[in-house]
Amino acid sequence: MANFLNDIQFKNPIREGIEGYRSVLREIYRAGLISLKDLSQKVLIPIPVISKIVNYMVELKVLDRIPAGILYTENGMQFIESELKFYGFGISKCELCNGHPIFISPRWDNVLDKLDEIFEKRPKVDTTLDQAFATAETSLSRALLLYDRGALDGKKICLLGDDDYSSVAIAFLYLGFFPENPKLIPEEMVVIDIDNRLLEGIKKAVNENSFNIKYKLWDYRTKIPEDLLNIFDIIMIDPPYSENGLRLTLSRAIDMLRIEIGREIYLSFAHRSPVKFLKIQEIITEMGLAIMEITPRFNTYEGATILGNQTQILRLITTSDTKSSISSTFKFEEQIYTGELSPTTRFYYCLKCNKTIEIGETSQIKTIEKLKEIGCPYCKSKEGPFQLEGKVKNNPS
Amino acid sequence: MANFLNDIQFKNPIREGIEGYRSVLREIYRAGLISLKDLSQKVLIPIPVISKIVNYMVELKVLDRIPAGILYTENGMQFIESELKFYGFGISKCELCNGHPIFISPRWDNVLDKLDEIFEKRPKVDTTLDQAFATAETSLSRALLLYDRGALDGKKICLLGDDDYSSVAIAFLYLGFFPENPKLIPEEMVVIDIDNRLLEGIKKAVNENSFNIKYKLWDYRTKIPEDLLNIFDIIMIDPPYSENGLRLTLSRAIDMLRIEIGREIYLSFAHRSPVKFLKIQEIITEMGLAIMEITPRFNTYEGATILGNQTQILRLITTSDTKSSISSTFKFEEQIYTGELSPTTRFYYCLKCNKTIEIGETSQIKTIEKLKEIGCPYCKSKEGPFQLEGKVKNNPS
Repeated sequence: MANFLNDIQFKNPIREGIEGYRSVLREIYRAGLISLKDLSQKVLIPIPVISKIVNYMVELKVLDRIPAGILYTENGMQFIESELKFYGFGISKCELCNGHPIFISPRWDNVLDKLDEIFEKRPKVDTTLDQAFATAETSLSRALLLYDRGALDGKKICLLGDDDYSSVAIAFLYLGFFPENPKLIPEEMVVIDIDNRLLEGIKKAVNENSFNIKYKLWDYRTKIPEDLLNIFDIIMIDPPYSENGLRLTLSRAIDMLRIEIGREIYLSFAHRSPVKFLKIQEIITEMGLAIMEITPRFNTYEGATILGNQTQILRLITTSDTKSSISSTFKFEEQIYTGELSPTTRFYYCLKCNKTIEIGETSQIKTIEKLKEIGCPYCKSKEGPFQLEGKVKNNPS
Repeated sequence: MANFLNDIQFKNPIREGIEGYRSVLREIYRAGLISLKDLSQKVLIPIPVISKIVNYMVELKVLDRIPAGILYTENGMQFIESELKFYGFGISKCELCNGHPIFISPRWDNVLDKLDEIFEKRPKVDTTLDQAFATAETSLSRALLLYDRGALDGKKICLLGDDDYSSVAIAFLYLGFFPENPKLIPEEMVVIDIDNRLLEGIKKAVNENSFNIKYKLWDYRTKIPEDLLNIFDIIMIDPPYSENGLRLTLSRAIDMLRIEIGREIYLSFAHRSPVKFLKIQEIITEMGLAIMEITPRFNTYEGATILGNQTQILRLITTSDTKSSISSTFKFEEQIYTGELSPTTRFYYCLKCNKTIEIGETSQIKTIEKLKEIGCPYCKSKEGPFQLEGKVKNNPS
C-alpha cells in the first residue's frame, strides 16, 4: 500500500514520516482546493514542512498550485487514489459551533463586544517574550471552560502570564449572567506577568468595577515570592512552547497551588508531533499531574506562528504524587523563550514555478531583496512574481 | 472558604475529597433539580459515591429529594451560596450537536437507521466478559472520528474486541458518501473477539456486501497468533476497565501494529478520578504511546454502569519509544474482567426518608427482600416505599 510513501520519504525525508505525507495528501484530496495555512491547521504540521511536501509534490506533478491554493493535477489525483485509496470528501463540522467544545451562544454577545473593544487597545506583542495574543473568542472560551469545570466560583485563581487578557474575560463574565450586578466570579484573581504594559492594560480595562484582582510584576525564572506559595486553587498558563518553558511554568504553578488533591492547571500548548508530544507527556506525568482532557485546536491567536495559529488546551489536576521538578527558590538561567532563538520567517510563493520559498534570518535566503537578487532557488526566475503566502514566528516544533 | 467542605470530608470522607463534595453541590445548584444519573455524568463521580454525598446532605437538611430528583432546601441554598460562593446557572451546550466533537449531520440518517435495525438484534450482553453495548450513535461517531483522523482510507484496521459493533458502522459508512457504490473504506478490517456470538452477528449483519473483512475468535489473554503480529495500521479497543485489562490490551495492540512511528490506537476507557487516571497515564506513557487527544463523554452505552453510561476516548500514537509491557507470547493468567469481581448493584430510594440504599452482592444489603425484611437502614421503615433509581454493573473505580 505505502510503497509510494516510503519511496518519497526516503528521497525527501520529513520528520513527520510517511504519515505526514499521507495526511497532507489526504486533506488536499478531501478539500479539493486548500490554502497552505488551512492545510497546516488541519493536519497540525508546521507550515515549513507542509511547504516542503507541497513543493516536492509539485515537482512530481502530483499537485498543482494556483493563487487560491493547492490542488491535484488530473494525473496526480488518479495516481494517488489508486496508490493510497483515499475515499470521500471529509465530514462537516457542526454548523452552529464549528465543533468547538465551548459553545458561545448569543447570550455572550455583550461580553464579546466588550472584549473586542478592549483587545483592540492591547500593547504591541513583544516577540522576545514569546507573546502572541489570543482572540477575544478564545479568551472568552477559556473563561467559559473554567466556569463550566467549576474552576471559578469562589476559587482563588492565578493567571501566570496573561498576554491573552484571559483575566479580562473572567472579570466580565458576569455580563452573560446578571449584567446589572457586577461581580467577580472567583473569590480572588491574581494576574502575573513579566511585562508591566500588560498589567497596566488589564488594570485599566477592568477598573470600572472594584473587584478583588491583584497585579504582580514577576519574572517567573526568579524564585517564587513567599506570598505566592501554595495559595491558589486554579492556575492558567500559556507558556513558551519549549521543554524548558513547560518544565519551569509547571513547576512554578505546582508550588503556587495549595498542597491538596484536585487543584487544577489549565495549560495551553502548541500542537506537537507524537514523538515530541511524548516528551511533553513525560514531563507532566513525572510531576504527578493527571491529564484529564486534551483538546486540540482550542485556542486561536491573532497573527500566525509556524504551527498555524491554533494551540491545544490540557486540563491537569494535582494528585497525591504531584511534585514540581524545579525548586521554588531556584533561579532558572537557561533559555525558555523560543523568540530568543528564532525570529520571524516569511513564505513567498513563486508564481512562475509554483514553489514556496522560505525567507528569514534562519533560512537560506535572508531577505526578499536577496531573493530578487539571486532568483527563485527552484526556477531561477528573478522576477517571480513572488507572492507573500504567510509570515510566521518560529516556534521550535 | 472551604471550612464547611473540610469539615464534611472529615466527618464523612469520600475518595474524591472536598472537590468531590464541591462539584456535586455545584452541579445541583446550577441545575436546580437533577437526577442521580445526570448528576453522576456531569461530575464523573460513581453513582454510589454520589448517593453517599446526597444522603449525607439530606441528613444535614442542605438537600432535599423528590421523586423527580435532587434539589436544595431553602436554607441549604442560602447556606451553600454564602459558604461556597456558587454563581450562575451553568452554560448551555450547542443546541445542534450537544457539544459532541463528532457532528452527526442528516447525511448520516440512513447509516443510523441501518445500525439501529442491526443493533436491535445483538445477542444478550455477557457481563462476565465486561460486555456493554455502545449505542448506534456512538458506534457511528467512532467510525466518523476514525475517518476524520485519516484512520480508515486504505488502512488495515483491527477491532480488538467488538461488542460495540463498531465494525458494522465502519462497514456501512459508505452509505453516507456514495450509497450506490458499496465499498469498505479501509483496505482490510479484522474483527477479533472472544465471543463467537458477536463474530457471527457482525458477519451476518454485513454480509450483503462482499467486503474484505476477516473474523477471528481469540482470547487475547493467550499469546498473539503469528498471523496477527505487526500487520495493522489502526487498532480500536474498549478493554475491561481494570489496570490489568488496560496493560494487556495495550500490549497486544502494540505488538499487532506495524513497527513504525504513527500507528494509532483508539482507546475507550471509563472516567477515572485524577489519582486513578494518573496510574492509567503512567501505563500509557511507559509504553511510549503519545496521547494526542482525550475526549471525556465520547461514548454512550445502553444500560448503565456504576460510572454512569458514558466513557472517554483517547487517541494514542506510536513513537520511536513504543514498546509493549507484556510479551506477545506470554499467557496472561491474572484477572482482567471486572465482572469476575463485582456483580450488579441496584440503588433504591426510600420515599419515606429520602435516602438512597445500595443493594447487591457486594453491598451490606444483598437483596430487596432483605431490605424489606430489615427495613431502611436510615429510617428503619419496612414499607418504604422503595423506588428503583438505578441498576449498575460495578466497575472498580
